[in-house]
Amino acid sequence: MSNMTDIEIAQASKMLPIEEVAAKVGIKPEQLENYGHYKAKVDIHALKDLPRKSKLVLVTAISPTPAGEGKTTTSVGLADALNQLGKKTIVCLREPSLGPVFGVKGGAAGGGYAQVVPMEDINLHFTGDFNAIGIANNLMSALIDNHIQQGNALDIDVRNIPWKRVVDMNDRQLRHIVCGLGGKASGVPREDGFDIVVASEIMAVLCLATDLADMKARLAKMVVAYSRSGQPITAHDLKAEGAMAAVLKDAIKPNMVQTLEHTPAFIHGGPFANIAHGCNSIQATETAMKLADYTVTEAGFAADLGAEKFLDIKCRAGGFHPDAVVIVATVRALKYHGGVPKTELNHENLEALEKGLPNLLQHVDNVKNVYGLPCVVAINAFPTDTKAELDLVEAKCKEQGVNVRLSEVWAKGGEGGKALAEEVIRLAEDTTNDHFQYVYDLEDSIEEKLNKIATKVYRADGVVLAGDAKKQAKQLAELGFDKMPICMAKTQFSFSDDQTKLGAPRGFKITVREIKVNAGAGFLVAKTGNIMTMPGLPKVPASERIDIDADGKITGLF
Amino acid sequence: MSNMTDIEIAQASKMLPIEEVAAKVGIKPEQLENYGHYKAKVDIHALKDLPRKSKLVLVTAISPTPAGEGKTTTSVGLADALNQLGKKTIVCLREPSLGPVFGVKGGAAGGGYAQVVPMEDINLHFTGDFNAIGIANNLMSALIDNHIQQGNALDIDVRNIPWKRVVDMNDRQLRHIVCGLGGKASGVPREDGFDIVVASEIMAVLCLATDLADMKARLAKMVVAYSRSGQPITAHDLKAEGAMAAVLKDAIKPNMVQTLEHTPAFIHGGPFANIAHGCNSIQATETAMKLADYTVTEAGFAADLGAEKFLDIKCRAGGFHPDAVVIVATVRALKYHGGVPKTELNHENLEALEKGLPNLLQHVDNVKNVYGLPCVVAINAFPTDTKAELDLVEAKCKEQGVNVRLSEVWAKGGEGGKALAEEVIRLAEDTTNDHFQYVYDLEDSIEEKLNKIATKVYRADGVVLAGDAKKQAKQLAELGFDKMPICMAKTQFSFSDDQTKLGAPRGFKITVREIKVNAGAGFLVAKTGNIMTMPGLPKVPASERIDIDADGKITGLF
Repeated sequence: MSNMTDIEIAQASKMLPIEEVAAKVGIKPEQLENYGHYKAKVDIHALKDLPRKSKLVLVTAISPTPAGEGKTTTSVGLADALNQLGKKTIVCLREPSLGPVFGVKGGAAGGGYAQVVPMEDINLHFTGDFNAIGIANNLMSALIDNHIQQGNALDIDVRNIPWKRVVDMNDRQLRHIVCGLGGKASGVPREDGFDIVVASEIMAVLCLATDLADMKARLAKMVVAYSRSGQPITAHDLKAEGAMAAVLKDAIKPNMVQTLEHTPAFIHGGPFANIAHGCNSIQATETAMKLADYTVTEAGFAADLGAEKFLDIKCRAGGFHPDAVVIVATVRALKYHGGVPKTELNHENLEALEKGLPNLLQHVDNVKNVYGLPCVVAINAFPTDTKAELDLVEAKCKEQGVNVRLSEVWAKGGEGGKALAEEVIRLAEDTTNDHFQYVYDLEDSIEEKLNKIATKVYRADGVVLAGDAKKQAKQLAELGFDKMPICMAKTQFSFSDDQTKLGAPRGFKITVREIKVNAGAGFLVAKTGNIMTMPGLPKVPASERIDIDADGKITGLF
Repeated sequence: MSNMTDIEIAQASKMLPIEEVAAKVGIKPEQLENYGHYKAKVDIHALKDLPRKSKLVLVTAISPTPAGEGKTTTSVGLADALNQLGKKTIVCLREPSLGPVFGVKGGAAGGGYAQVVPMEDINLHFTGDFNAIGIANNLMSALIDNHIQQGNALDIDVRNIPWKRVVDMNDRQLRHIVCGLGGKASGVPREDGFDIVVASEIMAVLCLATDLADMKARLAKMVVAYSRSGQPITAHDLKAEGAMAAVLKDAIKPNMVQTLEHTPAFIHGGPFANIAHGCNSIQATETAMKLADYTVTEAGFAADLGAEKFLDIKCRAGGFHPDAVVIVATVRALKYHGGVPKTELNHENLEALEKGLPNLLQHVDNVKNVYGLPCVVAINAFPTDTKAELDLVEAKCKEQGVNVRLSEVWAKGGEGGKALAEEVIRLAEDTTNDHFQYVYDLEDSIEEKLNKIATKVYRADGVVLAGDAKKQAKQLAELGFDKMPICMAKTQFSFSDDQTKLGAPRGFKITVREIKVNAGAGFLVAKTGNIMTMPGLPKVPASERIDIDADGKITGLF
């Protein structure tokens, strides 16, 4: 194992020109729009008539812990391994948000010897997609306030404007503001606030759009304000969708980069995993499925949130579903679920592991029996894992008829993912394993959908609609917004809505406090608590470590 | 003359692959970073040891009027004409801001048959430079407020934070805000406001930096806040320059596109022409001067503002100066200066023309005798111009020893600019014409500099420091910020600080109301009135006309 940091490994790697990477999956140079030598956008228009041919593999995980799971690393390494086994594979990932890059988390391009490169570019505003989304979002805001300022013919209620401005930054100072101050020439005073770009409905629209025309139609439908009589006012009412779609003309095209082993990677779109659906764009997944034998993709958070939304929202919109699912876990994280504090995870502790295992097993059961999909558990290996611990995980999963494979891609790249890849191939190629079903039907009422998610996936005793949620459900149904999928906004740390309940809790209800419509994205957001849509910076922001020298070499990204 | 709109002409043109355009001036494919097929960033690092060899031509204008002058169109057409005459030429222009594109003005890529293409891309967020500047700017803001939130060790005075957030949008609603509301977890309440991206000091820094190391050093020096004892607090004090420079790593590289006649064009940087210096980057001009026989560039507003700042700020920082200056005028605009209303400009009116001509003649006198540079007047031809009118302009300029050339580049492209190009070549190649001098010395006191600009260029009777300006000048001198050039923020419509005084007014003083330091950009800003750094949208925003069809074709940009 190497002592190099992720960025040092990435910078030491020799990338191939992106044309050569693209050629591996049959993309011609004229179908690429290069962004420098190692990034390109793919001309989706030129590829639109190709049929889908790829197997789709979804990488999800146990409920996240501070110990880390390594979903992106596993996705990248699995794709490299599949390629080593002769399956032409493309990995599809989300674009990192700059907020976390400058804040706490750092970048999001995999780790160790399972990374996508050029990691500096991927982490630092990349091909400008987030910029285009931010501009379209803030144009919408400016048009709303300009409409009010110029006479307010639509009678917009300044106390009821759900559309917020965005910035690609962790900036708590902008969470709650009063804008339009300074007199008659400078707008109408009202309460407002900023979200981070990834929380913009436009991000979800871009990621769920099946083509440019669909994107424009979705943009037009977005509810951006309400009149004083409570009627929804859309982007179309403000004649905004044309300019927004024009600004997004390149952002909708998937970005191609490569892994350290030169596997083609699409990194495209990154909707928030809480108030949105948390996976890369349909354009990227769809394009990969036209070009590759295997498409590996990941969903945000754990299998109760990310995978559920991937299936019920993204797959429904895209008309596809996975042929196999990988559930990533670490022995350390399972011990954390079993009650061991973060500092004690390096010691063997079979008792704690056994106590934490139900978290994994419920996710396994959900994927296999609720979603009806074949799955494998990938243990992302750490040097401190003991044989007894690994054997215990394997035995427990076996009882559910699911195999466990050790993934050593962090240390060894694709070579360390071959065992996992072989099991993925076995599962995906045996189509008798596919019993896929959605968790709910679109025709179910809002409350039926919420109850199905809560009882079938979370194993709650039901759902409580608190505060205004009951009234909102009724109003949304009256406005005809009830036949949409539901995007659950719930803590990722627990199956329940209480983040302290680790493992596989029982005997709880899910309390929904607010339901709002994202009519363009095409889903309802059900919030189970205070969901943060604008993070803050920590005491020592990660940005303080980032630097660039006179030759352009970047340090301090991780 | 064609009846096609600018965007129709642009879309009907057949572009060359950008590699072929770059090859004309000796740039190798490996020195280019393509952004699609028709845009590229140039690797300045690879070219840094080449010597400068090009003549430099500055295009400036009379004081702007609602009749329009056509500086960008003339610059583009002149470059095409110089190429037709066998001089390898590159044109260097500013990047358009999205605010005006969505607001009133429309795009900024020339017009008619003298345009740069792809105009949709150039006008719609292009290669992401403005995004990178916005991110760096807003990271700085987030770090300031995070510092305050986390204990405020530097004792930042929340009532005295000159650093504003930015957005690339005309959004009057954000001019004056109160942020940090919502309780302890969401920042410290204070007054704040947003500027448009082009007004960010980082834009000026990027445009004046001579290389990456210089850019980082300038970023570090920016004064972003003051302590409660009045001491300046810099970006470096908040450990921000490394991450900001890393985010700007690609933005500092010039963007290459082409004219309709395939002349290479650098479109790079676009600082506000009022509170900043209003011309494209030193990187672009410098790189062009290493590659071309002739470099044509423009400066914002008229020759009293744009050209003065180009010479006293940009040329001083870059260590070059023009070999010839083109002063653009139209007969219509001169009649407007002579008191004719906008609706009456289509009729011959020699009396009004004679009354308006002093505006042109003062700019000519300034360029020739104050700045000491050879110049030619370019009359941007309109179909309504009469021979008698053109003869009058020519005769008056001749009295000052300056030739007039008709420019028909809007209707005819480079062919229509040959007469102008020939005169430019004659002026530039006769080095005995070069008597260049700065308007003031850096060692002059702040008040001496202001007085020299006001009396020598504006022909004012002097400068009055009103309000806090006198105190500010004293404080800035005490802090050691007085040996910098001055960036005048004055109305562009008059030589005076009163925009209603057209022509060549006499008997006035210039009133400076505020002086602030941009220590990173390296200049002092002297404001002579309320300078708008965040525009608003009009009743019917231009964005309402912008659209894109299912095949990606954009309409409604102009």
